Amino acid sequence: MAKAHPDRPQSVSKRQFLEAAGIVGGASAMLTALDAWGIGFSSSALAPPDLKGRPNNIRVLILGAGLSGLTAAYELGLRGYDCKVLEARSFAGGRCQSARAGFTIEEMDGSTRTCEFDEGLYFNHGAWRLPSYHHAVFHYVRKFDIPMEIMVQENDQGYLQFSNADGPLAGRRLRRREIKADMRGYTAELLAKTVDEGALDSELSRQNKEQLTDYLIREGFLDSRSLSYKGTLHRGLEKFDVMGLTGPNTPSEPLAFKELLESGLGNTFQGVTTIDHPQSMYQPVGGMDQIAKAFERQVGEKITYNAEVQELKQDENCVRVPYRDKAANEMRVAEADYCITTIPLNILSQLETDLSDQTKEAISKPRPSTVGKLALQMNRRFWEEDDNIYGGSSSTGVPGHTIIYPSYGYFNQKGVIQSAYAFGRMATTLGEMSLEEQVEQAIERSEVIHPGQFRKHYDGKAFSVAWHRTKHNEGGWTQWSPRDRQKYLPVLREPQGRVYFSGDYLSGLAGWQVGAIESAWTQIEKVHAVACTA
Amino acid sequence: MAKAHPDRPQSVSKRQFLEAAGIVGGASAMLTALDAWGIGFSSSALAPPDLKGRPNNIRVLILGAGLSGLTAAYELGLRGYDCKVLEARSFAGGRCQSARAGFTIEEMDGSTRTCEFDEGLYFNHGAWRLPSYHHAVFHYVRKFDIPMEIMVQENDQGYLQFSNADGPLAGRRLRRREIKADMRGYTAELLAKTVDEGALDSELSRQNKEQLTDYLIREGFLDSRSLSYKGTLHRGLEKFDVMGLTGPNTPSEPLAFKELLESGLGNTFQGVTTIDHPQSMYQPVGGMDQIAKAFERQVGEKITYNAEVQELKQDENCVRVPYRDKAANEMRVAEADYCITTIPLNILSQLETDLSDQTKEAISKPRPSTVGKLALQMNRRFWEEDDNIYGGSSSTGVPGHTIIYPSYGYFNQKGVIQSAYAFGRMATTLGEMSLEEQVEQAIERSEVIHPGQFRKHYDGKAFSVAWHRTKHNEGGWTQWSPRDRQKYLPVLREPQGRVYFSGDYLSGLAGWQVGAIESAWTQIEKVHAVACTA
Repeated sequence: MAKAHPDRPQSVSKRQFLEAAGIVGGASAMLTALDAWGIGFSSSALAPPDLKGRPNNIRVLILGAGLSGLTAAYELGLRGYDCKVLEARSFAGGRCQSARAGFTIEEMDGSTRTCEFDEGLYFNHGAWRLPSYHHAVFHYVRKFDIPMEIMVQENDQGYLQFSNADGPLAGRRLRRREIKADMRGYTAELLAKTVDEGALDSELSRQNKEQLTDYLIREGFLDSRSLSYKGTLHRGLEKFDVMGLTGPNTPSEPLAFKELLESGLGNTFQGVTTIDHPQSMYQPVGGMDQIAKAFERQVGEKITYNAEVQELKQDENCVRVPYRDKAANEMRVAEADYCITTIPLNILSQLETDLSDQTKEAISKPRPSTVGKLALQMNRRFWEEDDNIYGGSSSTGVPGHTIIYPSYGYFNQKGVIQSAYAFGRMATTLGEMSLEEQVEQAIERSEVIHPGQFRKHYDGKAFSVAWHRTKHNEGGWTQWSPRDRQKYLPVLREPQGRVYFSGDYLSGLAGWQVGAIESAWTQIEKVHAVACTA
Repeated sequence: MAKAHPDRPQSVSKRQFLEAAGIVGGASAMLTALDAWGIGFSSSALAPPDLKGRPNNIRVLILGAGLSGLTAAYELGLRGYDCKVLEARSFAGGRCQSARAGFTIEEMDGSTRTCEFDEGLYFNHGAWRLPSYHHAVFHYVRKFDIPMEIMVQENDQGYLQFSNADGPLAGRRLRRREIKADMRGYTAELLAKTVDEGALDSELSRQNKEQLTDYLIREGFLDSRSLSYKGTLHRGLEKFDVMGLTGPNTPSEPLAFKELLESGLGNTFQGVTTIDHPQSMYQPVGGMDQIAKAFERQVGEKITYNAEVQELKQDENCVRVPYRDKAANEMRVAEADYCITTIPLNILSQLETDLSDQTKEAISKPRPSTVGKLALQMNRRFWEEDDNIYGGSSSTGVPGHTIIYPSYGYFNQKGVIQSAYAFGRMATTLGEMSLEEQVEQAIERSEVIHPGQFRKHYDGKAFSVAWHRTKHNEGGWTQWSPRDRQKYLPVLREPQGRVYFSGDYLSGLAGWQVGAIESAWTQIEKVHAVACTA
């Protein structure tokens, strides 16, 4: 029926909209990488591997107490392995962190920032949301009885206000709900009228046409006689009155279709949410770090904190890992029969190792992501009280700027609101700014969405992270080019002598906790296969 | 452009689908009544009335400790009134109840049912969800610091399986997500191709056509060259593998458009959710009755429990209310300067009163709704563990049958799942069945959605309510005909001598807690206007 349709280049501003809308819905860089790798967004493994046999006094040294290292230590420990974990920080969790009063982040240049939020307020500045498909994470959530709650990913109450939109809607603050209702209403009207005029008679039977029209009337809130979209009270009400004392409530006016089209604002949503970012996602009650802390309660005694690995060496008998005990400021050496390293590849590539050239090449290839976040403590939850927004996000389309409303503490007095989520160049710039400058920029940008509120209610407390500047990380998640991923992941998935690699970078879901856990599950199986028959 | 389009009668099965889908999205009977009244779904009042002046030793007798009576007692108490509340039950809250171990419901025939759920499990068998627009409720949530959490209203992971659908999709279990993605994909394709063929050239400029096509490609996940919908991984994946060890993950196959149209399943959703049933709603942590209990902590000492009002009389000096003290089995009389009755109108109409004939007529007019619910305790949360469904609902289209997944206790072992929500005739039938029969019917109907699971994991504990059979209610919410509402509400909104009326029935939102609270706000203002100048 249709002619071949060439790809149309999108205008720069349109692409920016999409990108801005996509940041909260899923970092586009990650999605691209995943698509190229050809793997999906979900986890098939429901439980750790079923390992037969018990090891005989086997020592396993695990480098890094992030979720991958914690998983390996926990599971191997259950099976009788003698595990020891070296962790450079004074706490476990890796990028599974939450900033709350007293939490300190250290940058590569030695500078530190300590969070000063009020009691009960926190910010998940690393991992922050879990889709229900990530079974491996929920395996431990269930096992360790970690209380969970909804992280509101989609909220149609959120605002969009794009000053760089084309046409009359530029700079106009609109609810996502209004845009959705109007775009779906107008397109339903166009199609319903086309059907009504007989244009699709060769495509659809009379019965199908009637069924389609029924659907379109309902989907688009069309007037069933004229097939026109004239707005709907479900896009929002102009006037509310529960007692009906002031006359009928009135639906708000729909936006003009052509202005909507011109603005490109319809491109901020799709027919269904992406499968890895459904309407509701999940977070532990009290902060994402509750997952790390639950693991820590299980394996804490196996962890040596403040242990900075310096080298990674092995011979035919054992693995030797010299490390600096930061507390005592002394060099020590850990030895074991096997080693699982979960050290980020960009850090590992800086260490002295006797790994093969091919492995060193694999380790050196991927780039760590540049990513920054900022959250501000507010002395009043104006977004809830004044704007009826409980969770979800608003967007200005300004790259790096996003308002993400907290999915906890609803109806309380104060709250922490995320006001920047920057990648790439934007994150570099953000990370170079002082905290005060970041806050000022965030307030200025956010005032567009919440005029007069962000500045007024800023409580003088903010916390930011620049993962690419953070000590022991020097980056967010690992970014492989599609080609490198295909070429080098198979290398790293195999042991190099007595050394095994684990971490989210080894999975198809870099940057997600499920990747960290499942990579550990696959690697301990390999360790066990060797150690238990050796 | 379009010809006038007559209303098409929908087939019975289609109407049943809509009704079934609508039940969880908002009882259709209520919506109809509201539309007719011409008022909306939200609340304009943000706070109780600001009443000037202090009363001088004024006694107010409040009949009923539901949310309306509790609100009146609390607010008048704050302003110096001497309030006393008579409550027929042994606890406050009215229909704001939660069933948990030990909770007993009494029917009109004197029979009782006691809930035996395990510790920590409960079922909100009365009021069960709050949209954020219901400001008056959240006024007290904030004031009393009631911890709140998300009640998941919309979850695209939920299933539909309609055996009475037409065509090949009859009896096939589908995710809401699949139906949405496919219907929006195919309709986007139809419209995009229509645009591409020039059919809308007279309607839209070249630029608008390109913008519309851009939107449709994204909205419908269309192939950008052929403009065809070929499915999307966001409708669901056939195969998941986070480690990418078993080859690429594959999107599931889309359903056939004509089969979807024939089935009518697209009519279960709309362009946006209804404004009073957004994706996320709210519930108190630990049960809806936490709202009632919070009020009770404030005004409990003013409440006389187990006090069954027998008559409502007044003279020029005071109100006299004889009541039976059920505990002591004695008749007593309460006297006061003013009375606010929140007794359901269908109960009030049975009492001896000296109200005017016009008022009696108004009281006798509305019909209480017939409504029943049933919940089953399950010994495993199979809907979460096996089906990836955390909150939301599934539907079979069988009237009265709905599966509503709990929005609390995620990832725990056991859970309580609602398996019937019946109105009208269906509720009458349900209410006449024994609990065992109700359970058996619910299991049989629900096994269609969760084959082999409902029966296997039923934990032998269930709780049901038939509000129309429940003592002191004898109905759910108040149902006015549009004509009666217009005619009689103005009568009941004015005092009858020293007697004032309050309750959700007086508002445009019967059946919602916000109506109960706001009606109290309007009535205490009237009491005050008289009492403080008298």
